[in-house]
Amino acid sequence: MMADDAKFMKRCIELAGKASGFTYPNPMVGSVIVHEGIVIGEGYHLKAGEPHAEEIAINSVTDRSILPSSVLYVSLEPCSHFGRRPPCADLIISSGIKKVIIGTMDTSINVSGKGIARLKGAGCEVKSGVMEQECRWLNRRFFTFHEKKRPYIILKWAQSADGYIDMERSRDSERKPNWITGKAERILVHKWRAEEQAVLVGAGTIRADNPELTVRDWGGNNPLRLVLSGSGNIGEYEPLFRTKGHNVVFTCDGSAHIKDSVIVKMNDEENAAIRIAEYLYNSGIQSVIVEGGAEVLGHFILKGLWDEARIFYGCDFFGKGISSPEIRGKFLTGDKFTSSTMNVIINEESQNTG
Amino acid sequence: MMADDAKFMKRCIELAGKASGFTYPNPMVGSVIVHEGIVIGEGYHLKAGEPHAEEIAINSVTDRSILPSSVLYVSLEPCSHFGRRPPCADLIISSGIKKVIIGTMDTSINVSGKGIARLKGAGCEVKSGVMEQECRWLNRRFFTFHEKKRPYIILKWAQSADGYIDMERSRDSERKPNWITGKAERILVHKWRAEEQAVLVGAGTIRADNPELTVRDWGGNNPLRLVLSGSGNIGEYEPLFRTKGHNVVFTCDGSAHIKDSVIVKMNDEENAAIRIAEYLYNSGIQSVIVEGGAEVLGHFILKGLWDEARIFYGCDFFGKGISSPEIRGKFLTGDKFTSSTMNVIINEESQNTG
Repeated sequence: MMADDAKFMKRCIELAGKASGFTYPNPMVGSVIVHEGIVIGEGYHLKAGEPHAEEIAINSVTDRSILPSSVLYVSLEPCSHFGRRPPCADLIISSGIKKVIIGTMDTSINVSGKGIARLKGAGCEVKSGVMEQECRWLNRRFFTFHEKKRPYIILKWAQSADGYIDMERSRDSERKPNWITGKAERILVHKWRAEEQAVLVGAGTIRADNPELTVRDWGGNNPLRLVLSGSGNIGEYEPLFRTKGHNVVFTCDGSAHIKDSVIVKMNDEENAAIRIAEYLYNSGIQSVIVEGGAEVLGHFILKGLWDEARIFYGCDFFGKGISSPEIRGKFLTGDKFTSSTMNVIINEESQNTG
Repeated sequence: MMADDAKFMKRCIELAGKASGFTYPNPMVGSVIVHEGIVIGEGYHLKAGEPHAEEIAINSVTDRSILPSSVLYVSLEPCSHFGRRPPCADLIISSGIKKVIIGTMDTSINVSGKGIARLKGAGCEVKSGVMEQECRWLNRRFFTFHEKKRPYIILKWAQSADGYIDMERSRDSERKPNWITGKAERILVHKWRAEEQAVLVGAGTIRADNPELTVRDWGGNNPLRLVLSGSGNIGEYEPLFRTKGHNVVFTCDGSAHIKDSVIVKMNDEENAAIRIAEYLYNSGIQSVIVEGGAEVLGHFILKGLWDEARIFYGCDFFGKGISSPEIRGKFLTGDKFTSSTMNVIINEESQNTG
């Protein structure tokens, strides 16, 4: 039976992941209803404001009379809150389902055991912690945000075969962007942006590349765009990113004024990573992908404020330039995107901002 | 200047109240922008998901160049959260406004001083606590929910001239509903329902009146409908309330099953008020109006779990019947609805559920 539990929970995780990037500020959740070993209903949460996974799964069952002898699997603890629809815990109870198998608890303040308590209070048999690690990994942004009180931080860069993140950069040079990676990697990066709530670059990246930081090569929502510019002296690059959207500029110059951008004053650049993480947490932003350059990445690495690094390896040799950041961590294996030209490194000692 | 501050804050409160009942789970908020003593912009929060008061007020200003020498008044501390739009604190900062006058702090966990801190951090002059009592009264449901961790509880009943809430009631009698009040009062009650998130009645009311508990004589949202039925024996009155909607039935009979209704099991009827308040808090419901009968009202009065009682006085004498509840509290004066036939009593010793 344990093997079956894992099998059905895997399906919940698979379903949940279909909405990756669309559910903020809600977590991704998938649910499967099983009767005598056969899946009779499935659902996942599409986006905030839309029905939750459990409701969709229950409503997808044709013969409701067999619900009392069915098992509901769900990757995250059911909620106990009235939104536009009744709480999922209540819906499960009133559907007649008597057995609920949960991937992991919802540790956010609004749920945090209340859903399980309500199910048990109504006489449901509840088992929690099936494929728990995988279910927590699925919503690692959500859990980091609620438990560590800061966003989940992903670092991203591309480096040359000899370990340089960029050629020597001078502000006055008229050099073209130097692409270490190709079109396939760009599409992948756009997919990543669609999965995170915010993207951060330094002023140097604005000056050198003036990127759009959108998801144009992938379906999804554009992330909130953040710039770290100690001097605040990037007004000449207006409009930032060339496209409309929310921009936030972190700067030590409180009098800076950049069109369509919110200016957030920092006392010093040294603690920029802490200040940015705090600002994002207080703003309800659950994740950020830091796309460089080396100096910005360095701020986060120095403070231990990162969870995941995604590194592309190019074939060119630069000979000299700006060295790529050095980090310590565990290589992620088994991820479908990891390849000879890309690695994901997990920070096992990631820090809180406090 | 103080008199002017109060004048402009009163206007904020007036604006905020226009959205009464529509903003859940958000509070009501109004904002006014003043330049050299003249109002140049106004706004209020219409409903959750729509722009906040400050954004509407800022966008209503024609000549944005005078914003840096203008004052923004707002009845509640500006938020610091990204939703569909940037945080209000950021919008105020980037608008150039340098002085912000706030009615009262937002004590909910997501704001709780963060908005004021962000404004001050950006160099804004901030004054909080203007017309504070009135601003807290405006959002008494919101503050009770977040601070006392239970919904705001309003009791409502009508009593005869000789103090009876109802004639003797027998379940088998075929008596008609006995209206103590008339059409004007019914419209007022529908307005009240539109202002609260939930309405509660006892099984006796279902049996005697089978009410709809909707807001059909007033514009607004129907409240969530709650029934307290110790025995759970009201299935014969299906469909409850004759109209579609969410129903929650609190009962000691866990095996009860009532169409379109969520069943919440209670261990005992004695602590029904505590159980209902807890359930509503855990479900994110910020307010409830308890419309009787006498037994249900009694549960809340006995536990001190009520904030406000609204009592209609009829002209008829019943001679005998069910006595109206006895309560102690402060009569609300100056309320436009208080009249010779209606009183509002405030509980100055209202209890937490815990």
